Amino acid sequence: MLADDPLGARREGDPGDPRYLAAFERIDADPYDELIVAERDGKVIGTMQLSYLAGLSRLGAERCQIEAVRVAASARGQGLGRRMIRWGIDRARARGCVMVQLTSDKSRADAHRFYDSLGFTASHEGYKLALS
Amino acid sequence: MLADDPLGARREGDPGDPRYLAAFERIDADPYDELIVAERDGKVIGTMQLSYLAGLSRLGAERCQIEAVRVAASARGQGLGRRMIRWGIDRARARGCVMVQLTSDKSRADAHRFYDSLGFTASHEGYKLALS
Repeated sequence: MLADDPLGARREGDPGDPRYLAAFERIDADPYDELIVAERDGKVIGTMQLSYLAGLSRLGAERCQIEAVRVAASARGQGLGRRMIRWGIDRARARGCVMVQLTSDKSRADAHRFYDSLGFTASHEGYKLALS
Repeated sequence: MLADDPLGARREGDPGDPRYLAAFERIDADPYDELIVAERDGKVIGTMQLSYLAGLSRLGAERCQIEAVRVAASARGQGLGRRMIRWGIDRARARGCVMVQLTSDKSRADAHRFYDSLGFTASHEGYKLALS
C-alpha cells in the first residue's frame, strides 16, 4: 500500500526487506506509537500510524501525530479514509491529547481538500531536510 | 523561554505546574526523545527537542523531528539558533536518520527565512486540529 502511490512508488523496496520488520517491531514495542489497520473480509484495506508526542509546551500537553495514511486502491472512494481519520481523532481526544497534527506533501491537492473538510487548519509550513 | 514568544505567551502556565515536570520525566525516560539545552556561563540560553520517529515507509527509515526551538531573548541575534539546528542535523545524520523535519507556524516569517537558509524545503502543508 505504501508503494501504490505516486510518491511512495519512488521510495519503497521489497516488502520482505528486514528493515521493514525491524521498524514494525520498534513501533509495536513503543507505548506511544500505534499502527492501525482497517480490515474488510480479512484483508487489510487501510493503514495509518498514530504517534503520541510529548512536549513541554502548552503545559506539557501530548499531541497525536498522524502519519502514513493509506487506503488500498480497491477500497478508495468509499469514505474509508474519512472514517479512519475520525477514528484517530476520537482516539487522541480520549487519551487527552490537545491536538492532532500531520503534514501532507504540497502536491497532494486532493488530500488537502480532505483534511480541510475534516476540520484541520493548514496553519504551519512543513519543512523537510533529506539527509544523504 | 516557551512563554517569552508572541505565540507561546498565550498558551503557557506557571513553570511550577506539575504537568511540566511530568512531561519532562516522560521525555527524559524515552530513548527516542531528547531535550537539548544550550548553556552559557551556567545559564540555559537555548532549548530544542529532538524526537526520533519510527515509520514503515522508506524502508522503515527513522526521521528526526525538531520541536520547541527557543533562544533566550538575551542571546538572540548571535547565531545560536543556527548552531543548534546544525548540531541537531549532525546528530540525526550520525544516528542514520534519513530526514530532519519540523513545522513552523505560517506567521513566523523570520523563522521561515531561517529554515530556508539552513537547506530545509517547505514541501509540506502542516495541518493542526485543536481538541477541546
